[in-house]
Amino acid sequence: MSYNTFGHLFRVTTWGESHGPALGATVDGCPPGVALDAGMLQHWLDRRKPGQSRHTTQRREPDAVEILSGVYEGHTTGTPIQLMIRNVDQRSRDYGNIADTFRPGHADITYFQKYGLRDPRGGGRSSARETAARVAAGGVARAVLQSLLPDLRIMGYMVAMGPHRIDRARFDASQIDQNPFWVPDAQAAEDWARVLDRTRKDGNSLGALIEVTASGAPAGLGAPVYAKLDTDLAAAMMSINAVKGVEIGAGMDAASLTGTENADEIDMGADGPVYRTNKAGGILGGISTGQELVVRFAVKPTSSITTPRDSILRDGSPNTVVTKGRHDPCVGIRAVPVAEAMMACVLLDHLLLHRAQTGATGPLGDIGA
Amino acid sequence: MSYNTFGHLFRVTTWGESHGPALGATVDGCPPGVALDAGMLQHWLDRRKPGQSRHTTQRREPDAVEILSGVYEGHTTGTPIQLMIRNVDQRSRDYGNIADTFRPGHADITYFQKYGLRDPRGGGRSSARETAARVAAGGVARAVLQSLLPDLRIMGYMVAMGPHRIDRARFDASQIDQNPFWVPDAQAAEDWARVLDRTRKDGNSLGALIEVTASGAPAGLGAPVYAKLDTDLAAAMMSINAVKGVEIGAGMDAASLTGTENADEIDMGADGPVYRTNKAGGILGGISTGQELVVRFAVKPTSSITTPRDSILRDGSPNTVVTKGRHDPCVGIRAVPVAEAMMACVLLDHLLLHRAQTGATGPLGDIGA
Amino acid sequence: MSYNTFGHLFRVTTWGESHGPALGATVDGCPPGVALDAGMLQHWLDRRKPGQSRHTTQRREPDAVEILSGVYEGHTTGTPIQLMIRNVDQRSRDYGNIADTFRPGHADITYFQKYGLRDPRGGGRSSARETAARVAAGGVARAVLQSLLPDLRIMGYMVAMGPHRIDRARFDASQIDQNPFWVPDAQAAEDWARVLDRTRKDGNSLGALIEVTASGAPAGLGAPVYAKLDTDLAAAMMSINAVKGVEIGAGMDAASLTGTENADEIDMGADGPVYRTNKAGGILGGISTGQELVVRFAVKPTSSITTPRDSILRDGSPNTVVTKGRHDPCVGIRAVPVAEAMMACVLLDHLLLHRAQTGATGPLGDIGA
Amino acid sequence: MSYNTFGHLFRVTTWGESHGPALGATVDGCPPGVALDAGMLQHWLDRRKPGQSRHTTQRREPDAVEILSGVYEGHTTGTPIQLMIRNVDQRSRDYGNIADTFRPGHADITYFQKYGLRDPRGGGRSSARETAARVAAGGVARAVLQSLLPDLRIMGYMVAMGPHRIDRARFDASQIDQNPFWVPDAQAAEDWARVLDRTRKDGNSLGALIEVTASGAPAGLGAPVYAKLDTDLAAAMMSINAVKGVEIGAGMDAASLTGTENADEIDMGADGPVYRTNKAGGILGGISTGQELVVRFAVKPTSSITTPRDSILRDGSPNTVVTKGRHDPCVGIRAVPVAEAMMACVLLDHLLLHRAQTGATGPLGDIGA
Repeated sequence: MSYNTFGHLFRVTTWGESHGPALGATVDGCPPGVALDAGMLQHWLDRRKPGQSRHTTQRREPDAVEILSGVYEGHTTGTPIQLMIRNVDQRSRDYGNIADTFRPGHADITYFQKYGLRDPRGGGRSSARETAARVAAGGVARAVLQSLLPDLRIMGYMVAMGPHRIDRARFDASQIDQNPFWVPDAQAAEDWARVLDRTRKDGNSLGALIEVTASGAPAGLGAPVYAKLDTDLAAAMMSINAVKGVEIGAGMDAASLTGTENADEIDMGADGPVYRTNKAGGILGGISTGQELVVRFAVKPTSSITTPRDSILRDGSPNTVVTKGRHDPCVGIRAVPVAEAMMACVLLDHLLLHRAQTGATGPLGDIGA
Repeated sequence: MSYNTFGHLFRVTTWGESHGPALGATVDGCPPGVALDAGMLQHWLDRRKPGQSRHTTQRREPDAVEILSGVYEGHTTGTPIQLMIRNVDQRSRDYGNIADTFRPGHADITYFQKYGLRDPRGGGRSSARETAARVAAGGVARAVLQSLLPDLRIMGYMVAMGPHRIDRARFDASQIDQNPFWVPDAQAAEDWARVLDRTRKDGNSLGALIEVTASGAPAGLGAPVYAKLDTDLAAAMMSINAVKGVEIGAGMDAASLTGTENADEIDMGADGPVYRTNKAGGILGGISTGQELVVRFAVKPTSSITTPRDSILRDGSPNTVVTKGRHDPCVGIRAVPVAEAMMACVLLDHLLLHRAQTGATGPLGDIGA
Repeated sequence: MSYNTFGHLFRVTTWGESHGPALGATVDGCPPGVALDAGMLQHWLDRRKPGQSRHTTQRREPDAVEILSGVYEGHTTGTPIQLMIRNVDQRSRDYGNIADTFRPGHADITYFQKYGLRDPRGGGRSSARETAARVAAGGVARAVLQSLLPDLRIMGYMVAMGPHRIDRARFDASQIDQNPFWVPDAQAAEDWARVLDRTRKDGNSLGALIEVTASGAPAGLGAPVYAKLDTDLAAAMMSINAVKGVEIGAGMDAASLTGTENADEIDMGADGPVYRTNKAGGILGGISTGQELVVRFAVKPTSSITTPRDSILRDGSPNTVVTKGRHDPCVGIRAVPVAEAMMACVLLDHLLLHRAQTGATGPLGDIGA
Repeated sequence: MSYNTFGHLFRVTTWGESHGPALGATVDGCPPGVALDAGMLQHWLDRRKPGQSRHTTQRREPDAVEILSGVYEGHTTGTPIQLMIRNVDQRSRDYGNIADTFRPGHADITYFQKYGLRDPRGGGRSSARETAARVAAGGVARAVLQSLLPDLRIMGYMVAMGPHRIDRARFDASQIDQNPFWVPDAQAAEDWARVLDRTRKDGNSLGALIEVTASGAPAGLGAPVYAKLDTDLAAAMMSINAVKGVEIGAGMDAASLTGTENADEIDMGADGPVYRTNKAGGILGGISTGQELVVRFAVKPTSSITTPRDSILRDGSPNTVVTKGRHDPCVGIRAVPVAEAMMACVLLDHLLLHRAQTGATGPLGDIGA
């Protein structure tokens, strides 16, 4: 993992800026012979696409993905897959007035400080538009996983928006695709729509808590000590724009548990070990247990807001920033498909790593055999 | 970052098992000409060393580190530095009875499943003894940082043990080294001693919350997009044994903030930008702002407890596990020096990455110039 | 270095097939603030472009490069640079008849064996068209080197075509750009034109020997032990299509020397050590001496020839292969600009590595000071 | 591949200096469950061990290897394997007089220039003693290959010493282990003994040409484009001390061939394709064909000779160097077991890479099926 590349064997390098001609992902290390076409990727991109409800940025991007290499007659060839998405609706004029401005809470200032120059149009490389490339690459990972782990199911959803949490008692996975918040709680979806409308009108924004799970992953994935499955999932999620915290299973709350509470007791089931609880989030010692993998992360509120905030200009003089333009009032919403894509990439990468070292796609050690 | 290696340029590969003859770290990519001897590393190892109070494992390990290569006449030569720590007090008999046993909440089961065999003595590779090697390597990083960033100060401490949090109003950094909990609150230290004695007598264990900060790091460290400073810090901390969650600045709480609350407003100070708050934890867009870096992580309670827990044996039959031996009742305590070491390694690695790309050890972009 | 990525810090990932819609290079790790535009890259691509004389393939490709990311207002931003070259003149029909055919001496058979399928159009990923992407990436490296090492001069040229060697006594660097063979010997250029015309008419092809040198590189570049400068140069050149051998300085002939002959004796000059000879090719112990770097490599003759060769079909039945299409009678000719590009990439990569570890772009140790 | 680590998945990091307390290799990524003990590694180390004949250095090193981690009850556990070899016979006094001296043709000067300081004792990190660690690591690779590719046979031998070449007509593999030169030609062994005695008495040294082959490797190994099997073999061999050129199959001579000569024509055999010749050296397009792999490389003559050579001192003043001490008169001899070890490491690494991407240890594409 380095700079703009993610993954050990299934390696994704994303490139492109918010207002450049295009952005995309170079996917290397993909297994050969997997059915793949642009339509399969477009399916996932359409979920992340902006402008699908009044709750996300009104920038109109078709996010149409082209496959430029690595696929022949509908199958991957094992060579690098280049995925390109043209930027269509760049209104750079919206951003012209902030070329010398640093939005509080935004990467404007650090990119300038690090490099001595920056592409200020729409946030340049630090824009959440980069995540479109991740979703496209995640689509490739899903196509491969479909053939290697047909029972795998990855599911992302919001569990909180600002201070508003879902009621776990009302959890209904079938609701996730039925509302613009990817929230598994119909009541929350209704409430949050009102909350977010008000927030936007107030010139403000909200943070979010996202959960992404994977069921059907075998025991044995994960590579101690510095490429643990949870280490790589934490890195994957933390690399998404605006993420400030990542947790696995009980997560930060694990700190307040006792050993007896934290121990997921084990019974023998028909197909192997069965755990009574899942405080571990499906990972022990960096290696998957075969239980559901549970990752949660916090997305900070969008820093581009119309409420004035104090800042400085590049020359050091004081400045009050009011960010117009077409911004997500809760950027966490669109992080859901991105998190699913990162989960897919990490799981495939670890499946390949495990296969490399052991020759198997599942556990070598057979309990109860 | 792959398998047992951490870092992009300052690369640390740890090796060794809890009850093998030795463990250690191979440190590659270290700058040449830095003053280094074993005593400088021993200073840090002595902080993590077990058996220093009744609150940690009673295993008696001197943790004496030897430098086998890469140092000549007291200075680093730029070639790999091999650090070796002999295991001295391995009582394998303590563990003999659990060779076919899987402690609930422990990596016993996943190591066996992944590899088909495991070194069960003291947890083998999954033991927290591995972290001694990290502390040694962190000592090398500190020696280099001392010469490159003399004002850098890294400070780790506990902020919660089980459900007991420190009172931030009583925060006193000078207390950290004065108690066995590395807690910056004298009252908490006193209270926690009683709590932990009782927990141990009850055959139980407790989780912990650790915070590690770094002040004096320049703006500009961090490498977008998949080697962001926060991404690498999250990976570094999540790779430590028993860690279940990592957060930067406001962390998980960022989810419940509004954009106005989250914006760290900026003024111009004598030496550059000054931020009124630090919700960002010193990182924006994956790049350091020059503010204090603030990382927090949760350590789950030790899974080796004497309270019986239900599990299965390798043959699938039911089993009740009671783990004797010499275990930490709160393994989070000894995670404090480990976290400091990981912070040092990440910062040095990013300093070298930044220097590679830009030629500087600080920001290229000069605000107010 | 892995799969389709080359380099440690200045990392080039090439992608694309001979007859796909496009090919290109993703360049990551480039320093910021370097002047760069497509024209600067086109200059180098035009040198490699096919169809410039009757001695190379008659495929008509403009090889027009587009910069899709990483450059803003004419300067690199430090983020990934995506370089795309559209394929224009793909006549797939030329290759239709060899979809199940394996040309002797060609990667047709191994790609099929490895992956179970292949893109047969024009050799797919194994085509020398991939090298256009290298030349584009090399152009980026040159732009950076221009600012960091203004005195650096990279020069590639042919020293043999088939059994015909240049006469070193007639070496004239100014001739290199004056003939279609990049040969520093006007007489050889004249002779070789006749030889190659005859070879082509005979339905045959010829191998070549290429030399590429770099003067003006500082002492101190190279990273022992497994990323030695010569190791990385050998890897760089061996990765070029059809290369079968690589040598540094005296090269394979070093085997037949005595120690006294091989020792490049040293005198002290005004600006540092001066060597009486250069058997070392500018590299000792994997680190540059400051002398001219001298690399030489052999390119095998093009395997696509019209003289019938015995082979088998995919079903195992015997087959006689006669390869029509538009092939280079001496593919080594166009390897010259490719080798220069690889030299530029390796030198920049090592300059960044050296800067990372030492903070300098030249030697730390000062002789005679 | 970076700095002191070699390999993508089977990763070997060597460490240690000629006259430090120890040297060794950290081997990461090794498959689990493979039978391994120190004796199996010692077998290979004993072949490289100095002082076994009058033709190699008289330094007396037992080169006894200890396994410090990663092996439990005689089997690999899948965790890092630390291999340590104590240095026993360091006579630093032999080298004291050259602390400020730079031997012509030696890395003395470049290490000093690069790092500003160096460990001068016995050449420090640049000493050929580093290769003992490679041989130990190669022993691990061989143990794994034994289980995955039982028919694989790796064979290294000298084909020239100085200007003296073997007579291929007398090639007899059974002779290789019967003489101190690893030469497959009994007559050459006898002649070379006389030649080398005279060379040593003359205060001189000789270069060598080594060939290393592997039969029984499946088709399909190799990872285009920048981790081709030949690319990685070239890097592996070029990284060995004193190597100045590497070639595959016809090698440098491929430059002088015609296309008809170079084409290895193909017939269908009982078990797949059979090639009439092997100009390719078993590799096409960077991927193995299933034929014998043939690598050849040149080792320059030892630079430490007793014949005076002109040089300079660290202060720039002129100096005549006469290197006493215990040096190999032909360092190429001991490169034979080292080259075999590198071949083993590269093949295992590529076998794991292939298995990761395709799930198989052999070709996916079945010709004639």
